[in-house]
Amino acid sequence: MAASPLTIAIAGLGTVGTGVVRLLAENGALIERRAGRPIRVVAVCARDRTRERGMDLGRCAWFGDAVAMAREAPADVFVELIGGSDGVARAAVEAAIGARRPVVTANKALLAHHGTALARLAESQRVPLAFEAAVAGGIPVIKTMREGLAGNRIDRVYGILNGTCNYILTEMGKTRRPFAEVLAEAQRLGYAESDPAFDIDGVDTAHKLAILASVSFGTEIDLAGVHVEGIRTMSPLDIEYADELGFRIKLLGSARMTEHGLEQRVHPAMVSVGAPIAHVEGVFNAVVAEGDFVGRAVLEGRGAGAGPTASAVVADLIDLARGLVLPPFAIPASALRRRPAAPIDRHRGAYYVRLMVVDRPGVIADVAAALRDEEVSMESMIQRARDPGEAVPVVLTTHETEEARMRRSLDRIARLDSVLEPPHMIRIEAL
Amino acid sequence: MAASPLTIAIAGLGTVGTGVVRLLAENGALIERRAGRPIRVVAVCARDRTRERGMDLGRCAWFGDAVAMAREAPADVFVELIGGSDGVARAAVEAAIGARRPVVTANKALLAHHGTALARLAESQRVPLAFEAAVAGGIPVIKTMREGLAGNRIDRVYGILNGTCNYILTEMGKTRRPFAEVLAEAQRLGYAESDPAFDIDGVDTAHKLAILASVSFGTEIDLAGVHVEGIRTMSPLDIEYADELGFRIKLLGSARMTEHGLEQRVHPAMVSVGAPIAHVEGVFNAVVAEGDFVGRAVLEGRGAGAGPTASAVVADLIDLARGLVLPPFAIPASALRRRPAAPIDRHRGAYYVRLMVVDRPGVIADVAAALRDEEVSMESMIQRARDPGEAVPVVLTTHETEEARMRRSLDRIARLDSVLEPPHMIRIEAL
Repeated sequence: MAASPLTIAIAGLGTVGTGVVRLLAENGALIERRAGRPIRVVAVCARDRTRERGMDLGRCAWFGDAVAMAREAPADVFVELIGGSDGVARAAVEAAIGARRPVVTANKALLAHHGTALARLAESQRVPLAFEAAVAGGIPVIKTMREGLAGNRIDRVYGILNGTCNYILTEMGKTRRPFAEVLAEAQRLGYAESDPAFDIDGVDTAHKLAILASVSFGTEIDLAGVHVEGIRTMSPLDIEYADELGFRIKLLGSARMTEHGLEQRVHPAMVSVGAPIAHVEGVFNAVVAEGDFVGRAVLEGRGAGAGPTASAVVADLIDLARGLVLPPFAIPASALRRRPAAPIDRHRGAYYVRLMVVDRPGVIADVAAALRDEEVSMESMIQRARDPGEAVPVVLTTHETEEARMRRSLDRIARLDSVLEPPHMIRIEAL
Repeated sequence: MAASPLTIAIAGLGTVGTGVVRLLAENGALIERRAGRPIRVVAVCARDRTRERGMDLGRCAWFGDAVAMAREAPADVFVELIGGSDGVARAAVEAAIGARRPVVTANKALLAHHGTALARLAESQRVPLAFEAAVAGGIPVIKTMREGLAGNRIDRVYGILNGTCNYILTEMGKTRRPFAEVLAEAQRLGYAESDPAFDIDGVDTAHKLAILASVSFGTEIDLAGVHVEGIRTMSPLDIEYADELGFRIKLLGSARMTEHGLEQRVHPAMVSVGAPIAHVEGVFNAVVAEGDFVGRAVLEGRGAGAGPTASAVVADLIDLARGLVLPPFAIPASALRRRPAAPIDRHRGAYYVRLMVVDRPGVIADVAAALRDEEVSMESMIQRARDPGEAVPVVLTTHETEEARMRRSLDRIARLDSVLEPPHMIRIEAL
């Protein structure tokens, strides 16, 4: 084949950047056969040129400034692997689009904050903007929502979108050790960052969910509309009760269109052990889409790491090499709809609540009365330990109710004399 | 949007055909938004024009002859939903391609038998030929292999590709009833055809596997090279032992490139309960691809039925409406490689064997000697029942060995006086 190569400029040579360079080198012949033309790295940009990366980049043009490279590099495509919602990454992507250079990025923070604006900019310049790697690593979930399931009205999309959290929750489930201890271990093993807040507070999941919701529902990205809770408060006790009740605890990102607007939620959730997603363990990610004709479709795979992320970046590059181009969010940015965020208070679902109470007669009656007064119906109650006059856990689950009612009940319950800690509430997800 | 509609002619108005018409009607506005233009049914072909289908086809041109429609209908795309590897379906698809009309089909038998030839014909005419619905129903597995994972060398691809078999095996596992009884029930419930041979003998799975292998490995379709065994011989006893050993029995289609050529196998397999595919139950399908960079990717969903199949057909139509076109098997048909079929005798794996033996001293020693003489190493042995002088089951599992050795051992074992039935062998799949 004598077709001209697709030339690319890569900004950022960290784990993912070097992964992309390595993939293109190792699978070069195969990619050329599939894409109909070679894909060639012709320029790179990284802070430290001298660092040993185990690869020959000698024939590439080196840039110290990503924005300059985005503007000037003699490349067909600009690949942004710097990261961060603003700063250099954003400036470089805008510069590339301004120079009418197609962009491939793995940057979920950038897209979650500025995705709709960037899509508008890209479309006004008639330049592709691709980001398969931004959500769920190697799993082609953006392509699946944008193309594979394009005939369906999507009723709900949800998933396990952060491998760090899933690793921690899986380990807590296996070993019943406390959160802080498992987190520390995850950090030692390289599964969690030294500053883990971004992952464990649910921010990373929220970024990915906001992107996924936009592609699934044809709406503008609304990161501010995502209700976010992390996993810091998860305790081995709750994991034990979950097990007893037939649940697993997962950090889920979940989106659906409701009568109150677009509901986007990120929080720990009880999912039935019978749900496919309950068996997704460790650093694996999974996305479930419910379409009106296809039914339930599940995609599972590695959500992070050099190999899987590089796989997604290169899939975007091969699409570009083949001339397969769609609007970034599947439909023209101007056609993306703005929908109000459904307030979490209007969420309807079942709830798990754990209370630490003084073991004495009448406590359960007081709790039950608080629920009844808000028309919350109890589904089950467990008080296994008996220790008169001492603190014991009481666990209850409710039937489906409105979150506002649940919160008012919990406020009342928290004020009861015999309730010793703020109630631990975990939403039960009907999957 | 004033873009001109994509007009389609549908041959075959059975379950899938009416599903496609209904999907296009119900989700018409959404599809127009996503595809950038409406998709309109302008011609149909079915044997019985008067049958009540619950939909208005009054404005369509009706054809009695699918080949004539393929040639003459005033439509942009010909959609073949007749079925069958030859006859009208094949003639109509060839006629459509001959008339330079793009084809979308759900016909796995046609593709498994004539896919490479049809791809050549389509490419010589520069006409798209799309068939997402042919493999795993609503799950976009063709698109995933062709595009989403295109950067990867695929090391192995396997899956549960037939809902009828998976339903029967799942039910046998739950209820421990014999095969024939569960099959009869599946027929009553509409999960199995009145003539079930095509499904339960593994033919349908072989068709889908041959297509999947071609897209995954860039090889010509080689249906004759698929080793096929069905599920008729599965017994509740084996399912019970599988359970005890930590396995589930699934009918798997599995393909990989080996030093002996392309290995394509369809047969019941023992899979560890820890494998994601072990939890795929009932009529659900799943496909697992192992890529060198992405690692393991799993896709799960409904593999048959009007809704899921229509979802896949319409995804292909939306691709065409958007101008997203690739060669049918991802690379030009002329570039598809011919690879020898790896003989099943060269397969390497572990094995489960159940024997019915007379319970008397020395039997196990004879069996062990037969294995030892072929250098097959035993991994475990169970003889739970004791009934001196009577028939009892003995179950053993082996370490990895070559199939030829295993077969020679089993031939010897079958000839032992104390062995009362031909040995039941089920391959153990390392997933």
